[in-house]
Amino acid sequence: MPVTAEVRDSSIDRRRRLSAALAAHDVDLLLVTDLTNVRYLTGFTGSNAAVAVPTDLDGTTSIATDGRYRDQVTAQAPGLPVVIERNAAAGLLTHLTQEAPGGRLRVGFESDAVTVAAYTGLCEVVAGTDLELVALRGVVQELRECKEPGEIALIEKACQIADNALAALIESDAVVAGRSELAVARDLEWAMYDHGAAGIAFETIVAAGPNSAVPHHRPTSALLAEGDLVKMDFGAVVQGYHSDMTRTVILGEAASWQREIYEVVAQAQAAGRAALVPGAALVEVDAAAREVIAAAGYGPQYVHGLGHGVGLQIHEAPGIGATATGTLRAGATVTVEPGIYLPGRGGVRIEDTLVVTDTGARSLTSSPRALQIL
Amino acid sequence: MPVTAEVRDSSIDRRRRLSAALAAHDVDLLLVTDLTNVRYLTGFTGSNAAVAVPTDLDGTTSIATDGRYRDQVTAQAPGLPVVIERNAAAGLLTHLTQEAPGGRLRVGFESDAVTVAAYTGLCEVVAGTDLELVALRGVVQELRECKEPGEIALIEKACQIADNALAALIESDAVVAGRSELAVARDLEWAMYDHGAAGIAFETIVAAGPNSAVPHHRPTSALLAEGDLVKMDFGAVVQGYHSDMTRTVILGEAASWQREIYEVVAQAQAAGRAALVPGAALVEVDAAAREVIAAAGYGPQYVHGLGHGVGLQIHEAPGIGATATGTLRAGATVTVEPGIYLPGRGGVRIEDTLVVTDTGARSLTSSPRALQIL
Repeated sequence: MPVTAEVRDSSIDRRRRLSAALAAHDVDLLLVTDLTNVRYLTGFTGSNAAVAVPTDLDGTTSIATDGRYRDQVTAQAPGLPVVIERNAAAGLLTHLTQEAPGGRLRVGFESDAVTVAAYTGLCEVVAGTDLELVALRGVVQELRECKEPGEIALIEKACQIADNALAALIESDAVVAGRSELAVARDLEWAMYDHGAAGIAFETIVAAGPNSAVPHHRPTSALLAEGDLVKMDFGAVVQGYHSDMTRTVILGEAASWQREIYEVVAQAQAAGRAALVPGAALVEVDAAAREVIAAAGYGPQYVHGLGHGVGLQIHEAPGIGATATGTLRAGATVTVEPGIYLPGRGGVRIEDTLVVTDTGARSLTSSPRALQIL
Repeated sequence: MPVTAEVRDSSIDRRRRLSAALAAHDVDLLLVTDLTNVRYLTGFTGSNAAVAVPTDLDGTTSIATDGRYRDQVTAQAPGLPVVIERNAAAGLLTHLTQEAPGGRLRVGFESDAVTVAAYTGLCEVVAGTDLELVALRGVVQELRECKEPGEIALIEKACQIADNALAALIESDAVVAGRSELAVARDLEWAMYDHGAAGIAFETIVAAGPNSAVPHHRPTSALLAEGDLVKMDFGAVVQGYHSDMTRTVILGEAASWQREIYEVVAQAQAAGRAALVPGAALVEVDAAAREVIAAAGYGPQYVHGLGHGVGLQIHEAPGIGATATGTLRAGATVTVEPGIYLPGRGGVRIEDTLVVTDTGARSLTSSPRALQIL
């Protein structure tokens, strides 16, 4: 995986933005151990790593990983001093104790990524040294929330792959009575690969009939049947960036209760999309869709939040739910995915991935949202 | 997903074994938040859960999850009292503070699964109550190390699927010069699904030519070429249980250096397999294979441990490496996977998944280990 100048430059720019953000937290550096954050800041994709980013804009970022990744880290994160050590975080911290200038060094660590056991190990490393550990959380995640144009382009590509895969599946009559949820899910994943996905964003959900009432149903050998609601929730990965989309179709003929809940969910989803404007309170965005469902009497059958950020992870900041804090920022890529689930009968969810613009939002997924009867 | 009596009975038995193990740790209960451990102890597979298992064999285990999983948790973990709460661990702990009998209640938590931030939240819940948090680690993982016959059968099925998929791929001339690493990886995954896999155990590695010298290479659009070493590391999932296997083949004709490192790795792997006996020190098992490679002069080109446990996770206890502590136990399912990696030229790894028996070990993977020239 050769590193393009563009990737290298954006890593450098991200680390500069992190340094600027760290200045507000009274630490001398941040020890980054969340692997997605490591990737974001350096380009390194190995499964074991830690990165130390200094608050000082003129300071040097260093990275630690183990022997398996000696060549890969040099190729993906060129120019960064590398510490090879099986326990990457402890090794990097040990390295810092040796390099530390006179005086205290306040080392931020990611308290939402470091386990209590790992923290105990880090405390042992700094015991008796001039290093002091300071719990911080979400600093890099907050940077990741606003996507760069290059990131948006990759997410949009992942969205288009999902769109194309679903269209191809429907076109080829693969979503029909008599086939199993598992077979349809496999077809959907295969079609995404076929359309250029580097990976599958998460375990594909295909849920038919009563199973569609289970929000996070895992596909089974259950067969699709005439009259079923068929809920498909799936996404592709392109260069580490994810897409996320749900469409619910009906096989054969739609019953009136199915049309009714579909229509309510579609209206709620439209309201949620319309509420995506920079500066909006996240809880208000959630409410915009939730009120539509509650007004139709289905409030108790809508058991989850409206949406979530999408990027290097399938679920990332911001979370859009009834208890969310904070506001929506321009450049955020988020899902809008209300649903109604009637246990034992069936459920509907409609979900798009959108990017928040300076004035509103643009959907990156573009499969038809109107009820499709196959 | 209906729960069979067998699954329910083994969950109950596992919780009883956990209770017995907890008696040695001076706690009244264990708050289990590691999702794999939750699945092991209850059968529940949702993405948000916490379980409280009492040390008292006559006590009641309870489970918490959020509203999305209300039906699923009842179906998968029948008979357990359920707390519905978005923050499952904190919700369950709050529930316990209300239920607590008079006197202190010592609550073990999984310090290797709980982040510092989550721990801070739990501390807030117990502040001012009779509950006291006690850090424990690896208690459930240690139980999981020795597999039940039913678990071994599922791992063996996953191994056979991988065997069959590779055989089908080679049979159909899919591993040939001119095809891309990505295409071969997709074929391998597709073949595993075709042979009955419920999922893919981890991102399939197909690494050709110089890429085979990267231990954890991700497949690219690079084309396989005559004379290449092609390293394939892959596995299937069956009912949550994983398999793990690596085979390295050569296309066309083998150079003498390729034959040499293949032969050394094969001998090292055989030595590692032969060293698998219950009671053996893990570090000695590692050494058995490592000495073969070191004696041949390739010590520095073997940059990782010998193997790891395989089960509900692709990597679990025990780790078999140069710094491992502890001994091998009968019923453990582990990989043996030495390798030699010559940067810029190519590498060889041979890996099987085996189960430790009362007297030695039995390989669950059965693809040929002799050098295959395709």
